[in-house]
Amino acid sequence: MNQLYSSKLLENAVNEFSKLPGIGKKTALRMALYLLKQEEESVKQFGQALIQMRCEVIYCKFCFNLSDTEVCEICSNSRRDHSVVCVVETVRDVMSIENTMQYKGIYHVLGGVISPMDGIGPSDLNIDSLVQKVADGKVSEIILALSATMEGDTTNFYIYRKVKSFSVVISTLARGLAVGDELEYADQVTLGRSIVNRMPFESTIKNN
Amino acid sequence: MNQLYSSKLLENAVNEFSKLPGIGKKTALRMALYLLKQEEESVKQFGQALIQMRCEVIYCKFCFNLSDTEVCEICSNSRRDHSVVCVVETVRDVMSIENTMQYKGIYHVLGGVISPMDGIGPSDLNIDSLVQKVADGKVSEIILALSATMEGDTTNFYIYRKVKSFSVVISTLARGLAVGDELEYADQVTLGRSIVNRMPFESTIKNN
Repeated sequence: MNQLYSSKLLENAVNEFSKLPGIGKKTALRMALYLLKQEEESVKQFGQALIQMRCEVIYCKFCFNLSDTEVCEICSNSRRDHSVVCVVETVRDVMSIENTMQYKGIYHVLGGVISPMDGIGPSDLNIDSLVQKVADGKVSEIILALSATMEGDTTNFYIYRKVKSFSVVISTLARGLAVGDELEYADQVTLGRSIVNRMPFESTIKNN
Repeated sequence: MNQLYSSKLLENAVNEFSKLPGIGKKTALRMALYLLKQEEESVKQFGQALIQMRCEVIYCKFCFNLSDTEVCEICSNSRRDHSVVCVVETVRDVMSIENTMQYKGIYHVLGGVISPMDGIGPSDLNIDSLVQKVADGKVSEIILALSATMEGDTTNFYIYRKVKSFSVVISTLARGLAVGDELEYADQVTLGRSIVNRMPFESTIKNN
């Protein structure tokens, strides 16, 4: 049954909130009533922050990461290694990798993976610009950091075929047991791969 | 650890979202990225709906319910019984009771309950205006529909003492087994009250 609202303006706000992912009408109402209790100024700030973000955030012209400027902070940082390019699906993946603080190269955001089921082909993604970067000869290594799904693997292979003729190292993320995993609960495929791709013990000492 | 954002504008939006009740940084980021994928127009509409609600929604001057106009839809509806006043804590309770479609009187929103622990006394609530309504002699019944908590009971009793000298019927919500409850799982207090306050069987037939 539909909720009855005594105020059309409240109803509008609730409807807008409930368009957000994972937000139902009840949560939306809670949020709207919360905002009603806040200072007028801070609600204005809230609304304007959203509008400003949508209207002013742009994509970096080199790596397609979210940015406030034409060239993002990472691409314009001269202390990063511009010859190593990490290829990711989304801007979220850039954040995840940046959070590890382990990577000092630059990124290339594809904007998704090849997925015929969803009607996403190579031309819908930022693949041509990646190949162009490699063809320009300024890239020594590309790291394929896509999801370990069928679509991710397909995209990896597509990129691999496009760039293999150039002199560039093509690597991918290490797959294996997660840190803290117990053997007993690891899935077969992961455990199998981590045995096949076993690594020198000494290298794990170095990393710690 | 703090998330690193490549865009200050995105960070602002995430921070604003995470001020909402029950929204953490991760959910806030999901919402912000969702908005980034929407049309500019619909994000503007979103932001403006929130601002407009906060700046333009007012409280009905008679019942203190949320309203777009000086007098709310319920108070200005001549088909409702203006001699019966249902006293509730919040505008949410008005919505809950309206949703039952069983009530045809008007409301009076207190804005909370007396709670010394939270520093809320009678003067912080819309109690004087309720007493004035009763004193004016236009009210034949007030229904105390507050929470069944200690604070709710205290407030009920406070209002009762203030209005008992006027010729007004003072009733409260029926307490007892919820519809669909099984005896076995009902709590002792509720079950005890529902035996003490048992009602004629015939009245339950009439209601169905």
